[in-house]
Amino acid sequence: MPDMRLIVAGAGGRMGRALVRAITETDGAELAGALEAPGSELIGKDSGMLAGLPANGVKLSGDLWAMSEQADGILDFTVPAATIANVAIAAERGLVHVVGTTGLCASDDAVIKSVTKRAVVVQSGNMSLGVNLLSALVKRVAQALDPSFDIEILEMHHKNKVDAPSGTALMLGRAAAAGRGIELEEHSARGRDGVTGARRPGDIGFASLRGGTAAGDHSVIFAGPSERLVLSHQAEDRMIFAHGALKAALWAHGKPPGYYTMDDVLGLKDLF
Amino acid sequence: MPDMRLIVAGAGGRMGRALVRAITETDGAELAGALEAPGSELIGKDSGMLAGLPANGVKLSGDLWAMSEQADGILDFTVPAATIANVAIAAERGLVHVVGTTGLCASDDAVIKSVTKRAVVVQSGNMSLGVNLLSALVKRVAQALDPSFDIEILEMHHKNKVDAPSGTALMLGRAAAAGRGIELEEHSARGRDGVTGARRPGDIGFASLRGGTAAGDHSVIFAGPSERLVLSHQAEDRMIFAHGALKAALWAHGKPPGYYTMDDVLGLKDLF
Amino acid sequence: MPDMRLIVAGAGGRMGRALVRAITETDGAELAGALEAPGSELIGKDSGMLAGLPANGVKLSGDLWAMSEQADGILDFTVPAATIANVAIAAERGLVHVVGTTGLCASDDAVIKSVTKRAVVVQSGNMSLGVNLLSALVKRVAQALDPSFDIEILEMHHKNKVDAPSGTALMLGRAAAAGRGIELEEHSARGRDGVTGARRPGDIGFASLRGGTAAGDHSVIFAGPSERLVLSHQAEDRMIFAHGALKAALWAHGKPPGYYTMDDVLGLKDLF
Amino acid sequence: MPDMRLIVAGAGGRMGRALVRAITETDGAELAGALEAPGSELIGKDSGMLAGLPANGVKLSGDLWAMSEQADGILDFTVPAATIANVAIAAERGLVHVVGTTGLCASDDAVIKSVTKRAVVVQSGNMSLGVNLLSALVKRVAQALDPSFDIEILEMHHKNKVDAPSGTALMLGRAAAAGRGIELEEHSARGRDGVTGARRPGDIGFASLRGGTAAGDHSVIFAGPSERLVLSHQAEDRMIFAHGALKAALWAHGKPPGYYTMDDVLGLKDLF
Repeated sequence: MPDMRLIVAGAGGRMGRALVRAITETDGAELAGALEAPGSELIGKDSGMLAGLPANGVKLSGDLWAMSEQADGILDFTVPAATIANVAIAAERGLVHVVGTTGLCASDDAVIKSVTKRAVVVQSGNMSLGVNLLSALVKRVAQALDPSFDIEILEMHHKNKVDAPSGTALMLGRAAAAGRGIELEEHSARGRDGVTGARRPGDIGFASLRGGTAAGDHSVIFAGPSERLVLSHQAEDRMIFAHGALKAALWAHGKPPGYYTMDDVLGLKDLF
Repeated sequence: MPDMRLIVAGAGGRMGRALVRAITETDGAELAGALEAPGSELIGKDSGMLAGLPANGVKLSGDLWAMSEQADGILDFTVPAATIANVAIAAERGLVHVVGTTGLCASDDAVIKSVTKRAVVVQSGNMSLGVNLLSALVKRVAQALDPSFDIEILEMHHKNKVDAPSGTALMLGRAAAAGRGIELEEHSARGRDGVTGARRPGDIGFASLRGGTAAGDHSVIFAGPSERLVLSHQAEDRMIFAHGALKAALWAHGKPPGYYTMDDVLGLKDLF
Repeated sequence: MPDMRLIVAGAGGRMGRALVRAITETDGAELAGALEAPGSELIGKDSGMLAGLPANGVKLSGDLWAMSEQADGILDFTVPAATIANVAIAAERGLVHVVGTTGLCASDDAVIKSVTKRAVVVQSGNMSLGVNLLSALVKRVAQALDPSFDIEILEMHHKNKVDAPSGTALMLGRAAAAGRGIELEEHSARGRDGVTGARRPGDIGFASLRGGTAAGDHSVIFAGPSERLVLSHQAEDRMIFAHGALKAALWAHGKPPGYYTMDDVLGLKDLF
Repeated sequence: MPDMRLIVAGAGGRMGRALVRAITETDGAELAGALEAPGSELIGKDSGMLAGLPANGVKLSGDLWAMSEQADGILDFTVPAATIANVAIAAERGLVHVVGTTGLCASDDAVIKSVTKRAVVVQSGNMSLGVNLLSALVKRVAQALDPSFDIEILEMHHKNKVDAPSGTALMLGRAAAAGRGIELEEHSARGRDGVTGARRPGDIGFASLRGGTAAGDHSVIFAGPSERLVLSHQAEDRMIFAHGALKAALWAHGKPPGYYTMDDVLGLKDLF
């Protein structure tokens, strides 16, 4: 099978450059285009050089329609407006559309899903293989263990993160709550400080550390009588989201039209 | 339902005393007898006092037949010879027999299984809820992740442990190998020291720490490109084996005759 | 040198029984008396049996004056009123008085210090060797690292703990603040939840986990640009406080009258 | 004070590019030259572009003598032959020479030290602030704790590392041995596998994990009776060596001629 030819959307940005590097490192994938906002001053620059690599001859361009003629997929971690603009062209051209853009509203999601009768879309708020797998595990473990095991979720992120707990921590909390058949909102213990009283049975606790440049660590602790089971994920750098997107694209290449998530890509629905 | 009446085998030993304490702490269970080797000097002592509890009136005795008349189950973490001696009586009396004894040979196992057409036996080399669940998780994760994730198993035990890796680490290694569809023996990296060369793809690595009084920590690390998923279990003390045995007994109470493992007790076969 | 003869105060309580066991396990120490509140129903019981050990012939008694005639020291983890009652007798009898009682008020402390011109007292709010050493390390590291390293303190305790952060976490925070020459109260980030904004430079962050039966874990994280230094302590069980008290007693045996802390016992003042 | 003008040796290599990025991120430092082996095909390329940054106008050149006329220091993580060639010119020009090159032999070290009567050299086998501080801590803790605390050293590195334990793990082992006043070679337990027998008292144990892309984690565990003190360092990426080198250069700027190490830079000699 020939290599999958991929376009990187937002190729001049931090995540876009990571995607360019990831394609270079991945067997079976090649860079077919580098999309950037039409007015950007980076248009015409070499996407390899921008990514800290040798020049690769793929210049940044604002014309998705043209570059997609010779492409099989598009990796899109941009902003909602850009992603929505890309959806129609990607569908028309038959590209696999891997969407990692966050902050999409319900109507954006509706637009994306509207094309999946005729096109392949893979979407996830977190493309890391590890985090998606962790979330599936947490749900099953929460189901398997009786309530004498207390569930605590710990996360650490860099000092510039402005919210706590992290979105991924909350995602893990929802997975734990689903496993237990409870609503997270009614069973959360957040921001413990001062005289809290004993732990409320059934609560899911959250604690957040901030400091340095940590790319993102998450641990889910199941603490029972004299034993603890801890499921952790550690991101070393943002390349994991790029690698996850590549895996998603290669997996989706040739699949029938439809809306897919990382659970499909990882085969988590079959495994558990 | 009335409480389950339980006999503790080896009630004068370290694990037996832990079992006596665990019964005291568990709703739905009561101590019905305290078995010790017939010649032991502890015969006649109060099993509560021996366990560091107030006297409970249950004296150590060597006569399983007599004490089992008023019992529903027996918790048996002793030695192979004693366990085998208990099997027939337990089956005859209709007791649930929870067997945590280690070091049993194949013929011992055959004796135990021979009674399971008419009696209930629950057996496991490690009664900890957490370790059994960890093992099931490891198998699924090894299956879900492609071979670009390297598998490493780390364990720490107290300074008196004489072998490495621990039996539980090897059990986890077998679970990982099963998930990958490989043989552990052909894909192990043990005792790394000196110029080892780069990691051999597909190997499952083992590392052992020894020191202090650690009851037993195990971590299975799935290390991929820029991310790590770590599944860990930490035993705080030996009471977890006692609690696991109690859970097994209560679960098995009233079940049809058969041979069961902790996977049955925890419902792991249904969950995964 | 003959063994140090030690009295355990509150010998019928949870900590007292741990002290009896610790004496049994420690070379150079022997149990000389088991003190309990005069009206207790445990008076007359064997202190070994109560501690889950074979009978040792040392019965619980309420008469410190009598038992201290043949003793060299007293280990006292009781309540303020009892400790204050013991101070005068211990001083009069020339006993080393190891005080681990918490909740003492300023006037209690004054009473204790008043005898140290003629008697030996060792006092600490946390007798664990490891925690005292950790605290000394944290102070030095906070001094050595520039403020681009963010300091975070994480602790985990059992589900019944009613306050957060733990007293020991706050002690570690004060050590970090002292190393930096700042006031902890003005530079604490506690109970992060919701939109917190970016980390305030110079803050010392606290996060608390609660669950299961954890005896007490503490980590101090120094998170800088692309690296983290983490200093952690993990208590496996309450015996560490007993062992710390034993070490303090043996160290203090024969020392000149004075008021000592665990820093003296561990030689931390000389080392750092 | 004007910015310190720094030359990066080996500016086209992986570590050189990290140094170029680190200079860009550091207040008080500016890039004054980019040295590369005279015959390299990278000569004439823009050092900023190579580092994944915007062009900065500093082209790679093979002529250290020329570029050092307008410089205050040189950051040198190259190979022994290159470093030795740089030493004389750096000394003649009065540059602070920060040497992070590894694999130097004794005669190389002699050459480096020979210039330190008239020039400033800072040298370390590991420029990470955290690792150097960790090493100093380990020595003091090993000194403070009695031998009932077992010392274990755990490290994890990426799958391509060819030796075990890591050089840094051995450095930490030597620090621990020095604290205890023993020889590491006679008290090491490496590569545990099989029936090892109980831990030999006084040994320093090593365990190595390999997998994925881990930049380097090290933990020193002091495991005593029922408690553990763990001192850990985690490198998120190679930038920490670059940042350490920058800190060393800025610290050394204006210092009297001499041979300095990271202990001097960090003030560890005064602190401990």
